[in-house]
Amino acid sequence: MDKLDETIGALKYNDAGLIPAVCVDVESKKVLMVAYMNATALSETIKTGKTHFWSRSRQKYWMKGESSGHTQQVKAIYTDCDADTLVIEIAQSGAACHKGYFSCFYRKLNERGDWDVIAEKIFDPEKVYKDDK
Amino acid sequence: MDKLDETIGALKYNDAGLIPAVCVDVESKKVLMVAYMNATALSETIKTGKTHFWSRSRQKYWMKGESSGHTQQVKAIYTDCDADTLVIEIAQSGAACHKGYFSCFYRKLNERGDWDVIAEKIFDPEKVYKDDK
Repeated sequence: MDKLDETIGALKYNDAGLIPAVCVDVESKKVLMVAYMNATALSETIKTGKTHFWSRSRQKYWMKGESSGHTQQVKAIYTDCDADTLVIEIAQSGAACHKGYFSCFYRKLNERGDWDVIAEKIFDPEKVYKDDK
Repeated sequence: MDKLDETIGALKYNDAGLIPAVCVDVESKKVLMVAYMNATALSETIKTGKTHFWSRSRQKYWMKGESSGHTQQVKAIYTDCDADTLVIEIAQSGAACHKGYFSCFYRKLNERGDWDVIAEKIFDPEKVYKDDK
């Protein structure tokens, strides 16, 4: 077992064997998305330099961008004091959000207790995902 | 039921009734910590303007800074496309990490597959938490 396998194995995963990964834009530091990795997805992310996740809804691995082409190039990986969360700095191709926004966090709570959309779509999801809906 | 209660109720919580909250520094946008809220902790966070969380290990509510004085003043709250994660922009008093670092994400993966500490402590945890260890 090499050091990297040991490091990946020493992280704290939840009961489902997953660790949340906060993906941030390497330039602006803006949070683009939060998704979940297991040890294999993290290992694949490090080996290939492209983010891979475990889909809880589809129960399968996926490489971000495998349908849309909107891949994420890994620039740096951080963990926290509890070793139960990752922050991954990435260079995002296209947009992170499958709804067409650069960041998935495109809604902000307003004073009336409702969400305002605070970003513009940069692609049309119906065109980008037309083949795998 | 007012609009805010409806908005809080419409978020997607996990099986334990929790939603992850990524706390970012309002100035630098740097990720400071990730912790978990339930609906009541989120409601308290909005009402008081200070972050409140649910401690999974201690099974209780806590206001960030209640022991250390290192509170977090809420500046804005965002949610993502799936409404299952929050980003909270905060002004951090002192430091976010109970180990003394400004951000909990003070370790970066290096080329040898190990973690490098990439920040300096800004307080001594043994002094700050001396009364409640």
